[in-house]
Amino acid sequence: MNYRIIFYIIGWVLNIEAAFMLLPILTGIIYQEPALWSFVIGGAICLVFGVALTFKKPKHQYFYVKEGYVTVALSWIALSVMGALPFLFSGSIQNPVDALFETVSGFTTTGASILPAVEGLPKCILLWRSFTHWIGGMGVLVFLLSLLKLAGGSHMNLMKAESPGPSVSKLMPKVHSTAKILYGIYIFITVLEFIVLLVSGMPVFDAITTSFGTAGTGGFGIKNDSIASYSPLIQVEITVFMILFGVNFNFYFLLLLRKWKQAFSNEEVCWYFIVILSAILLIGWDIRGLYSTTGVALRESAFQVGSIITTTGFATCDFNQWPQLSRTILVMLMFVGACAGSTGGGIKVSRFIIMIKSTGKELSQYLHPRQVKKIRMDGKSIDYDVIRNIHVFMIVYLLIFAFSLLVLACDGTDLITNFTAVAATFNNIGPGLELVGPSANFGLFSNPAKIVLILDMLAGRLEIFPLLLLFVRDTWRKF
Amino acid sequence: MNYRIIFYIIGWVLNIEAAFMLLPILTGIIYQEPALWSFVIGGAICLVFGVALTFKKPKHQYFYVKEGYVTVALSWIALSVMGALPFLFSGSIQNPVDALFETVSGFTTTGASILPAVEGLPKCILLWRSFTHWIGGMGVLVFLLSLLKLAGGSHMNLMKAESPGPSVSKLMPKVHSTAKILYGIYIFITVLEFIVLLVSGMPVFDAITTSFGTAGTGGFGIKNDSIASYSPLIQVEITVFMILFGVNFNFYFLLLLRKWKQAFSNEEVCWYFIVILSAILLIGWDIRGLYSTTGVALRESAFQVGSIITTTGFATCDFNQWPQLSRTILVMLMFVGACAGSTGGGIKVSRFIIMIKSTGKELSQYLHPRQVKKIRMDGKSIDYDVIRNIHVFMIVYLLIFAFSLLVLACDGTDLITNFTAVAATFNNIGPGLELVGPSANFGLFSNPAKIVLILDMLAGRLEIFPLLLLFVRDTWRKF
Repeated sequence: MNYRIIFYIIGWVLNIEAAFMLLPILTGIIYQEPALWSFVIGGAICLVFGVALTFKKPKHQYFYVKEGYVTVALSWIALSVMGALPFLFSGSIQNPVDALFETVSGFTTTGASILPAVEGLPKCILLWRSFTHWIGGMGVLVFLLSLLKLAGGSHMNLMKAESPGPSVSKLMPKVHSTAKILYGIYIFITVLEFIVLLVSGMPVFDAITTSFGTAGTGGFGIKNDSIASYSPLIQVEITVFMILFGVNFNFYFLLLLRKWKQAFSNEEVCWYFIVILSAILLIGWDIRGLYSTTGVALRESAFQVGSIITTTGFATCDFNQWPQLSRTILVMLMFVGACAGSTGGGIKVSRFIIMIKSTGKELSQYLHPRQVKKIRMDGKSIDYDVIRNIHVFMIVYLLIFAFSLLVLACDGTDLITNFTAVAATFNNIGPGLELVGPSANFGLFSNPAKIVLILDMLAGRLEIFPLLLLFVRDTWRKF
Repeated sequence: MNYRIIFYIIGWVLNIEAAFMLLPILTGIIYQEPALWSFVIGGAICLVFGVALTFKKPKHQYFYVKEGYVTVALSWIALSVMGALPFLFSGSIQNPVDALFETVSGFTTTGASILPAVEGLPKCILLWRSFTHWIGGMGVLVFLLSLLKLAGGSHMNLMKAESPGPSVSKLMPKVHSTAKILYGIYIFITVLEFIVLLVSGMPVFDAITTSFGTAGTGGFGIKNDSIASYSPLIQVEITVFMILFGVNFNFYFLLLLRKWKQAFSNEEVCWYFIVILSAILLIGWDIRGLYSTTGVALRESAFQVGSIITTTGFATCDFNQWPQLSRTILVMLMFVGACAGSTGGGIKVSRFIIMIKSTGKELSQYLHPRQVKKIRMDGKSIDYDVIRNIHVFMIVYLLIFAFSLLVLACDGTDLITNFTAVAATFNNIGPGLELVGPSANFGLFSNPAKIVLILDMLAGRLEIFPLLLLFVRDTWRKF
């Protein structure tokens, strides 16, 4: 294990975090809030650690899969711990576990909050909450890669470990360029949303924070009722942007290259839209009696479906009160998640496609035992390694899910609350059902339960393996 | 596809079913019940079809995996349809879907009932319900194989398709002998339980039906409160026998051969007991406040844990009223299930062991990318095909689970009821929680929901693939 390069990169992550804190500081200056000092101190602490770790460039820059995964996991933990400091320093959150929960929830773009009300918080704190979504959405290491040209070793491993989905496609031969393009698209659509919201009459601050949240597919809002009090037009616009940020960014890259045919024949993106459309129609039909017109029912349905499948977690109504069919569909969408290579969480549409194809292959094995069949997607055959990895992913996913459920059950909360709390954090969504529904919060859980949920959020965002590797003794051998 | 041999074997299955109906007829004669005629007519219909199908021995007896799986699936459907006739003829159940539900629940050893009360039913009907558990437990095709010496073709495929677990070990070189030994052990332990219960003061009829239920790990009782009204001694004895029937029968075979060391080093059996013991202690601790002494709490805990993990489904108390931790543990045990090669259902302990080992292997792949590591169990390395099959099994399992949940949600029943109803049928357990808890029944569901649950029970008992193959068009090609 090359510890030096690992700490070196973590150092850079902390430097970047310190730089990112300038934004809430600026907000604090504009709104003249004393809470800005908590960011000044927090940023300074970040910088001290960051500079100390990046002071000396390591001699050996070799970098394997293992280093990549461990670096990403540790970076995210460091990022979260440092990011929690302003919450504590400003007194917005008193319990350190709660502060960590809120920050991890931010960076992992979960959006589950332990705060019963957010409207009284200083603006700079609110901005930081939303900004963590934006940073975590595309990933801080991808950001780092777009800035730094790290020499030696395959830094693709860093990107692989941080980017969601079963396999990462390099858009360009160089990781550096790929990261730049991804962040370019990301910034462009974020700014586009900001302008659209602004033009539709949203106040500037609201438009900034909402755009950050939508872009990162995280669900922190700045109002207690999330998005419910905004106009129907704004709600529809947010719906569209949520769904857009759940699309595989390769799709946008192909559009940029004008490879229309290749873009629109992407199996994952097609199925993503088919699932969304079916869910909107089914739920719209199921809740038609609850709203004045079919149009309103469809709008509410579309917002909630878009919010849940992209794992954003905004809400315009309390879907916990919806009929059972709609609730069940929403719970299922929590697991489906968005596209690979998007900023969304969950298991991902492409994993499901490959899993279903695996099943078909297994069945045809019974019928034609001697046949050798390859699983193909988008015309390319998929490596056996990727398929096995998806299978194992599902298994660990279930095991972690079951373990988390067991820990939460010790709190004595009901099964649906616990089940959807784990589903909502592990898939980086935000709200669940019952006691963690859209009109409630995660404050009710005990500290041990919250720590498990924190780990679930991190495991969900990093797609389990990087975080899991930290718990394997073999990882820490120097060999 | 060799249709002739398939129908020939189904014919034999129906002949055997007709013979099995002699037992309820005898019961009807002893207790002088008019309901016995429903079995006379039902048996006659069985025999007519059976004789017609077995009249001419097919020329070509070749028999591949495909034929094996399709035969088993169709046999079980034929068995269930015919077995439902006496319920309808006797008027005990009026709705044909309900009658099929009850019969499938019997043969698949689920024990979920649509009847609100069973104490008023004729004894011959009660005996048939319990007897279907016994028949389905070890499997009717295994029984057939122990009687018939089918020539030509690998009849191991029949046994493979019907026996639970990821891989079936032939105890003897010949399938015929393996089947004989399995049924020998099965009958021996069943008789043993009958004698033990009788000696402990249980009435003869109760001892017969309870032994049938325990042996098959099915949960039909002859009292409305299941096992609650029997003495503590009897409850403990049933606990022990339930757990014994959940053990891999290879274990008993090794004991018979006096291969003690090999028997007791069986990984699956060890983990099975570790899981049971941990669950009993955890739940016993959780419910200690509900019962007068720790002893009673542990007894209640042991009975319910034994009943759920072996997927029997008997109950001595309404565990739906237990605290959340205990409820959560029971729900998890529903999925774990018993050992492979036992009469129990569920996902099976051995599948979990292999899945956990798969995960370990995947993690070590990250650490040592060039290493080739084989997964081993009981000292033998496991074929890659078996591992892949287990992975795909889990995936289809989840997809079917989700689909069933969606159909049940259309009924408007709550999520926990639906979730545990699917869990309890798919894993062949019986009772779930809330509206399908131990003190309730499955009568509340609509016919479409019941049909889905019927398919779940069959898919659970046959471990999905045989039943799923029926829905693949390619299966029916003559080629």
